Amino acid sequence: MSRARFVVLEGVEGAGKTTQVRLLSAWLRELGIDHLTAREPGGTEVGEAIREVLLARRDAEMAAETELLLMLAARATFVREVVEPALAAGRVVLADRFDFSTFAYQGYGRGLDLDEVRRLNTFATGGLRPDLTIVLDLPVDEGAARQAREGAEPDRIEGAGRDFLERVADGYRALAAGEGRARTIDARGEAEAVHRRLRALLGSTFPETFPVRAGS
Amino acid sequence: MSRARFVVLEGVEGAGKTTQVRLLSAWLRELGIDHLTAREPGGTEVGEAIREVLLARRDAEMAAETELLLMLAARATFVREVVEPALAAGRVVLADRFDFSTFAYQGYGRGLDLDEVRRLNTFATGGLRPDLTIVLDLPVDEGAARQAREGAEPDRIEGAGRDFLERVADGYRALAAGEGRARTIDARGEAEAVHRRLRALLGSTFPETFPVRAGS
Repeated sequence: MSRARFVVLEGVEGAGKTTQVRLLSAWLRELGIDHLTAREPGGTEVGEAIREVLLARRDAEMAAETELLLMLAARATFVREVVEPALAAGRVVLADRFDFSTFAYQGYGRGLDLDEVRRLNTFATGGLRPDLTIVLDLPVDEGAARQAREGAEPDRIEGAGRDFLERVADGYRALAAGEGRARTIDARGEAEAVHRRLRALLGSTFPETFPVRAGS
Repeated sequence: MSRARFVVLEGVEGAGKTTQVRLLSAWLRELGIDHLTAREPGGTEVGEAIREVLLARRDAEMAAETELLLMLAARATFVREVVEPALAAGRVVLADRFDFSTFAYQGYGRGLDLDEVRRLNTFATGGLRPDLTIVLDLPVDEGAARQAREGAEPDRIEGAGRDFLERVADGYRALAAGEGRARTIDARGEAEAVHRRLRALLGSTFPETFPVRAGS
């Protein structure tokens, strides 16, 4: 049996997804586990072109439906050109955001019908789901404070305001609670401490892929 | 009651859609009927950017799902920025292709599940349907011959082969037969003769919008 696993980190801005993907990647490299870190659109030609369309309108109005369909078009390419080939080659795929982001931001956040969003997403992915989605749970205020310290500028989606982000964070919690293949972990505290929690979770969920060694 | 009507011409390549939209527009201008002729993406900023993504890959493989989602993203914008404002202002909208193209090419032609394609389309349009869709019915061979005479180069979709185009043409016939708000007209013969058929059809379907006058 292949040990390839598709693992996704999710969470609001500032929750530490990018940092944690980097730390997990360093850990896997140390263990000699063949893996790929990825973030949509993932460097595909079509995906990057779509990303430009989305970014070009960052300050402008874009219908929620248009935004969702563009994101899903990028996902359809990402799945077929990046994720599936890597899994087929037996590699672990660690992704920074995937379908939960769509459910949380476009569904819970922007108010599109969640069942509809799920159906559209399934069409885009051809039914591919992550083996495990880990939501880095952080109070919205702490995420914003982290981002401010890092000097990040809010983009069109991030600039949508506090109520919006609260809906997104609540959405993430509901999604993680409602799915067997999802877990929430506490993302407060030092990055190294969060990283240890992630390693423990991966090791206990997929021991054949992520061996938890003494002292690791 | 507003006399605004959303009328769409459909059909395979070479069926004469562009010519007939032009002739109908000249006729409406003569009648003093306020109207707009449009073709997706219709000059919207987002739509044109999406069109470039689709065209840039004209010779390359693109997953049918990606192609459909991009087209529907363009449609979501076209409906909201072009069609709905025109109809709200009481104008007639004459479009060269709309949802039937998606059902015929991506559904019947490329083999995507038609119910799924319809659901996705409804999401993109917010439920807006044309008041009348007219399929210009022409044997595939005659359409290809017309195109060859006009020196048109086949694009990625048009280059998909004869079997594909036959499925599309059959799909158009099935779609027109299955919907109350669709009609098929014979697109063989001179453009002027086809134009007279179209005028008669519009006049009999919406007499309050398109008055058929003596000698017209």
